[in-house]
Amino acid sequence: MIFTVNSPADFHVHLRQGSISTLVTPHVRKGGFNLAYVMPNLTPPVTTTDQALEYKAQLEKIDPSVTYLMTLYLSPTLTPEEIRKAKEAGIVGVKSYPRGVTTNSDSGIESYEAYYPVFEAMQEVDMVLNLHGEIPSNAEHNTHILNAEPKFLPHLYALHAAFPKLRIVLEHATTRAAVEAVKACGPTVACTITAHHLALTVDDWAGQSFNFCKPVAKYPDDRAALREVIKEGHPRFFLGSDSAPHPMHKKSTSTPTSGCAAGVYTSPILLPLVATLLESFGAIGNLNDFVSNNGRAFYNQVVSEEIGSVQLRRVSGVAIAESYGSDPESVVPFWAGKTLDWEIVS
Amino acid sequence: MIFTVNSPADFHVHLRQGSISTLVTPHVRKGGFNLAYVMPNLTPPVTTTDQALEYKAQLEKIDPSVTYLMTLYLSPTLTPEEIRKAKEAGIVGVKSYPRGVTTNSDSGIESYEAYYPVFEAMQEVDMVLNLHGEIPSNAEHNTHILNAEPKFLPHLYALHAAFPKLRIVLEHATTRAAVEAVKACGPTVACTITAHHLALTVDDWAGQSFNFCKPVAKYPDDRAALREVIKEGHPRFFLGSDSAPHPMHKKSTSTPTSGCAAGVYTSPILLPLVATLLESFGAIGNLNDFVSNNGRAFYNQVVSEEIGSVQLRRVSGVAIAESYGSDPESVVPFWAGKTLDWEIVS
Repeated sequence: MIFTVNSPADFHVHLRQGSISTLVTPHVRKGGFNLAYVMPNLTPPVTTTDQALEYKAQLEKIDPSVTYLMTLYLSPTLTPEEIRKAKEAGIVGVKSYPRGVTTNSDSGIESYEAYYPVFEAMQEVDMVLNLHGEIPSNAEHNTHILNAEPKFLPHLYALHAAFPKLRIVLEHATTRAAVEAVKACGPTVACTITAHHLALTVDDWAGQSFNFCKPVAKYPDDRAALREVIKEGHPRFFLGSDSAPHPMHKKSTSTPTSGCAAGVYTSPILLPLVATLLESFGAIGNLNDFVSNNGRAFYNQVVSEEIGSVQLRRVSGVAIAESYGSDPESVVPFWAGKTLDWEIVS
Repeated sequence: MIFTVNSPADFHVHLRQGSISTLVTPHVRKGGFNLAYVMPNLTPPVTTTDQALEYKAQLEKIDPSVTYLMTLYLSPTLTPEEIRKAKEAGIVGVKSYPRGVTTNSDSGIESYEAYYPVFEAMQEVDMVLNLHGEIPSNAEHNTHILNAEPKFLPHLYALHAAFPKLRIVLEHATTRAAVEAVKACGPTVACTITAHHLALTVDDWAGQSFNFCKPVAKYPDDRAALREVIKEGHPRFFLGSDSAPHPMHKKSTSTPTSGCAAGVYTSPILLPLVATLLESFGAIGNLNDFVSNNGRAFYNQVVSEEIGSVQLRRVSGVAIAESYGSDPESVVPFWAGKTLDWEIVS
């Protein structure tokens, strides 16, 4: 059985910098994708047009066969003028990280209202706002990593109300509440879903650091909501893998004083993985919409066979590699050692 | 400042077997305690009176200065006759593990009604039923490690209603729901609380395997409920450390296919740790009740200076050891590298 996917696009991916970037950037193509929407949380974060263009040039040097859509990191240095410059330069979005909730988010934002002039400019020039939708944990208010996303949703509603024409993407939704919130918003609000959040629940990352990521996978009912919204074919939900490579030693080991890195790495197996997952819950028929049509429509990106159609073949259990690269920077993919039911036809 | 604690008693502790037992059993005394209520989840589990007596003899050989109260592991081999024999032999309780929820629980129970004749005999001879109060995860019913305890509580109510005179201890409560359930029961139902669940929330074990245990630490509001019930001095709540040593390499490392061991090790620092925690939330005045009086009253164990009063001294930051023992079986204590505000006066 052969399944053809037109122009697969990953609308949320971490391609890092330095030697790990050289390793993982070609995995976008290896995983079946020819468009990568690139996150700006480098060290230091990508906060200017010039940095973003330089980063894009580095990625194109590593693998010129992929289209890289670039983003800026929302921070106090970002001005309406810089937004206009960024738009001119072809930069697509601005990513907002609440402070301290995930990898390299120390420069993240604390309150949105200070950024309203920036959002106003983004709405005007039609740039996309990408939201990491969690609020920081706070024991006094019973805010923790399991309810950090639902508690963020009032911010989503407020931003959408204040800037109804601003295109907003709630990134890597993990809860039923988030799915319902995005549905309740207008056509300018969309939502990415990762592959791994279609597979994991809290039980899977408890004591298992390779499955630990931010936002953490939630309860079975939340996973069910993510699966359902794909199955029903809602047009404003699409794939953003949040593929986030870390060297194996940072994932496998904790010390009593420091935990493991947050992030699940799916790039090199992404399209077969998504096909395997969608098939497992009866949504394989929506594969093209989920990994291409919906996201490309929202981002005004052409869907075309010429860009690159990818053929998937149904197989009986192809093993996933144990790791990619070599020590000390080898990276372990999600589901390492498990098997996939689909493979890309070379 | 000196604080005297009379007859500290740990009503839930794992003393293991073999060489790790030799290492950790003396830590009961080191941590300030002279009574240990010993869990039966060895390999194979302690299911008979003879096994329990043999295990007790092994522990007494390692450290004869501690009183060991022994328990049996509830399983289909346990009969009313064996209960009477156990009572005669001085065995105090029977521990129930739902199948598969924690370390060495593969022989745990699946349904309680089959055990009603055993419980009837326990009620008759006045043995204690110790409940690991979690139901197994089940995605279809949205049951996961965070709600496994609240979903167990109907079993507690049902057992208490069926056997109103049977003394029952809900072990290592971690949720507000469990605290309220135990309060709502009659005087034959009590509850242990660990030291580490007074410190941790879900944020602390996410990606940090040394803080991972079962039941997992829950939300800040649940931790607040545990603290409140100690602060209010409720007589049916008392310390059971659930101190559960694992070799460091089983705690520190995950592989993609297997996670780390569940368990937090507090024995060697237990009394100073509990004092530090209780002081942190304004309950140091209830230290004697929590670590001695309440539990001893429930278990009909004498409180007396002669058994051993322990003096604690207020200090400014005594460092906790990084580990105990030597490779490959060294064990890392809870809060390794952090400091305590109290120490035992030698």
